[in-house]
Amino acid sequence: MIKVILNGANGAMGKVVAELVASDENMEIVAGVDLNTDTKSVFPIFDDIRKIDIEADAVIDFASVKAVDNLLDFIEEKKIPAVICTTGLSDAQIDRIKELSSAAPILRSANMSLGINILSKVLADIAPTLRKAGFDIEIVEAHHRRKLDAPSGTAILLADAVNKNMDEKLEYTYDRSKRHEPRKDDEIGLSSVRGGTIVGDHDVIFAGEDEVISFNHRAYSRKIFANGAISAAKFLVGKSKGLYDMSDVIK
Amino acid sequence: MIKVILNGANGAMGKVVAELVASDENMEIVAGVDLNTDTKSVFPIFDDIRKIDIEADAVIDFASVKAVDNLLDFIEEKKIPAVICTTGLSDAQIDRIKELSSAAPILRSANMSLGINILSKVLADIAPTLRKAGFDIEIVEAHHRRKLDAPSGTAILLADAVNKNMDEKLEYTYDRSKRHEPRKDDEIGLSSVRGGTIVGDHDVIFAGEDEVISFNHRAYSRKIFANGAISAAKFLVGKSKGLYDMSDVIK
Amino acid sequence: MIKVILNGANGAMGKVVAELVASDENMEIVAGVDLNTDTKSVFPIFDDIRKIDIEADAVIDFASVKAVDNLLDFIEEKKIPAVICTTGLSDAQIDRIKELSSAAPILRSANMSLGINILSKVLADIAPTLRKAGFDIEIVEAHHRRKLDAPSGTAILLADAVNKNMDEKLEYTYDRSKRHEPRKDDEIGLSSVRGGTIVGDHDVIFAGEDEVISFNHRAYSRKIFANGAISAAKFLVGKSKGLYDMSDVIK
Amino acid sequence: MIKVILNGANGAMGKVVAELVASDENMEIVAGVDLNTDTKSVFPIFDDIRKIDIEADAVIDFASVKAVDNLLDFIEEKKIPAVICTTGLSDAQIDRIKELSSAAPILRSANMSLGINILSKVLADIAPTLRKAGFDIEIVEAHHRRKLDAPSGTAILLADAVNKNMDEKLEYTYDRSKRHEPRKDDEIGLSSVRGGTIVGDHDVIFAGEDEVISFNHRAYSRKIFANGAISAAKFLVGKSKGLYDMSDVIK
Repeated sequence: MIKVILNGANGAMGKVVAELVASDENMEIVAGVDLNTDTKSVFPIFDDIRKIDIEADAVIDFASVKAVDNLLDFIEEKKIPAVICTTGLSDAQIDRIKELSSAAPILRSANMSLGINILSKVLADIAPTLRKAGFDIEIVEAHHRRKLDAPSGTAILLADAVNKNMDEKLEYTYDRSKRHEPRKDDEIGLSSVRGGTIVGDHDVIFAGEDEVISFNHRAYSRKIFANGAISAAKFLVGKSKGLYDMSDVIK
Repeated sequence: MIKVILNGANGAMGKVVAELVASDENMEIVAGVDLNTDTKSVFPIFDDIRKIDIEADAVIDFASVKAVDNLLDFIEEKKIPAVICTTGLSDAQIDRIKELSSAAPILRSANMSLGINILSKVLADIAPTLRKAGFDIEIVEAHHRRKLDAPSGTAILLADAVNKNMDEKLEYTYDRSKRHEPRKDDEIGLSSVRGGTIVGDHDVIFAGEDEVISFNHRAYSRKIFANGAISAAKFLVGKSKGLYDMSDVIK
Repeated sequence: MIKVILNGANGAMGKVVAELVASDENMEIVAGVDLNTDTKSVFPIFDDIRKIDIEADAVIDFASVKAVDNLLDFIEEKKIPAVICTTGLSDAQIDRIKELSSAAPILRSANMSLGINILSKVLADIAPTLRKAGFDIEIVEAHHRRKLDAPSGTAILLADAVNKNMDEKLEYTYDRSKRHEPRKDDEIGLSSVRGGTIVGDHDVIFAGEDEVISFNHRAYSRKIFANGAISAAKFLVGKSKGLYDMSDVIK
Repeated sequence: MIKVILNGANGAMGKVVAELVASDENMEIVAGVDLNTDTKSVFPIFDDIRKIDIEADAVIDFASVKAVDNLLDFIEEKKIPAVICTTGLSDAQIDRIKELSSAAPILRSANMSLGINILSKVLADIAPTLRKAGFDIEIVEAHHRRKLDAPSGTAILLADAVNKNMDEKLEYTYDRSKRHEPRKDDEIGLSSVRGGTIVGDHDVIFAGEDEVISFNHRAYSRKIFANGAISAAKFLVGKSKGLYDMSDVIK
């Protein structure tokens, strides 16, 4: 039985993780962390991860940017395997994660779903061929009306995957309404649709001469992100120190 | 046999119109207008429509914004039925078209295809119901890499249709990458994809609570716009003076 | 407070209805019906609706075809407003519902979502125009891997809507792999995709000369069907006897 | 300058090839073959390829199944490189092509577009991973109303690509309307939409637990098939005997 600490236990994603772990025979949550400690859960909730003195095998993190600093202190002290799913981290936080990975196994990803991670491997593989053949590349993503940032972290992750093996990197463009000119050859346009409760759609479009290839991923619930984090935690336990990502889990 | 003058005869759309009329038993082109007069066509080409003294029943116009001024002079003088398909006209030109429509039948539309015009009728009908039911409305359009403007005139036409019967008009939003806030309730987001040779795709998305309805139009060739203009010209001959649009032709 | 009896309380849809009503200030479930009575719910569960002697304002039904016979007996006796959402009813059951509607207000629909019902109104309105203009009509639906029937009841509902105002009704075609001939002019092709946990996607495609218009509905969770049933029950209370459908609720 | 014989010169695809070659600086058509010899073309047309005694570097074939027999005789005699794009060949013809490839370089493909061929490489790569992760695989294709066969040869090509590296091959299913049972685990459903003038759309859908990945290819004109054949002919000239396919051209 893998014992897990859940950072961000009372957030939207934290609740989904707790629910899925509850019916997982190989994992249990031994402690949660959340500023809001006033909830009835089957595990104890702490307001600061650094106060936890319960033995655990891994941390799963779906918290806020602020809460990640305490988490990094905790990883430094305990050398505990950690799956970090919080997005929007500062450069300083990302640098510190890299340092800490010389002491503990850490996995970080902007999107925990199996589908997006397989898609990004495919994109990295084929984008240079399609680019050489004259295809233009565009990304459209759609999310619910409450989402604060645009484009989504996942759209950026996919654009980065497109660029990964490209000799000349493409630039990211977010708005064409102010221009009056043809499309630039060396850009990727990223468009953001917002509305309703859309969980997360991503379209990567390769538009060529009289043909269009598109790769689409659609999430129907947040369970896929929680499942990805749980798989990642299972993967990480027993691994040696280092920085991992979801492509290691899929292999 | 309906005799037509083709304004913008050597442009991309003008050529498609000429090709389709060539195999139309009920219409012939008696004269073309284009700054580039040096082409072999079966009809004479003039560099200024005002120089034409050939009898005609109607004008079909797919020209440049500049060429429209001469066209309006010509309509004023001849009181000839005119189908005006040039987009990006100035407010002054649009005002003059309204004035001229008290002397001649004029039809103007940002998109001549049957499909887009049926879609815009549907949108005007149902948008208020869906809005009241809490659906958010977004538009995504895709066009070829050479298109200069964004969003497309047709995307604006569709957004205007959504707004047509709305008590409180929705505002148009073109870029969310500079914000960090939830979607505004009273907006329509318009996104523009550019790439390859895409003729013209338009998606109107209604995103609600756990359900999404979308209306899509896809053009496979420019013939549909030329065909629409030809149908409009046939419709206009014999009509009394006034300002018409494609919804009159569909009826 | 509207008091409701829930027929099929322990089925997948029954549970969703119960969950949504639990947080609805204007409705409560006073009794449930299910062959499986061995569950902890906040309301009593009966194995036969005819045994219920608790005062109620309406019945919401998401049960099995068999359980509907008892329900119809109950409606006959109590003259109670009923929202019948069970699909796959026999012709005899449908006939009996029609008869009973001369004594009580009854609403029956193959799909309770707002979106599908708005879409079917739109389709009935515009299909004749598009057909006259030479567009071919096709429907593609996608559902989860456990669904037993194909095509979905909703796909048939949408095809019926397309046909509603058509002078010459189109025939439904389910398989083209055995033929070797061009598409028949007077048919609607219905295709069924099955896989994963897809809740329900429906595409109605109008394919014309170089242009395609499509109308798509995508369900992200079953809540939308439960919400539709709850709205329908609220609508039905206080209505006079008669047969209603979701288009009455939307108006 | 590569000299090409065009088999099927007056068919729909033959005409597109001729038009594109006309503006290609590195290729010219030295002879055409078609039962219909009564057309004005810039190259001579023969009714039987075996009558041609003009020096040529390659044959491009977009003809009828019948005309392919003469073509195979011609390849046997001349050992000339040949791009065979005619579909629906008999098993005997396919066997003979294999034999002839020990004497001349021959390339045969059910779809000549760059996009479809890249897509089929991607599918062969990732389908086993997605299958192991529990994704179900389905294909939907759409073509114009005049297409005789269903599903399309390209849909079969894509399904074969999905199966290529699969330990246990999936079976192809064309109709679910006669069944009343859950989806079988070891099948690929293939659905065919027919309507209007759709050139060719193909969707390969991977449906998993709360997420769907889909790969789509859309053709906007037949030029992409002609361009693929021209690229293939250029590739084939100078190659040694053997059987090639489009994946060799893309490399």
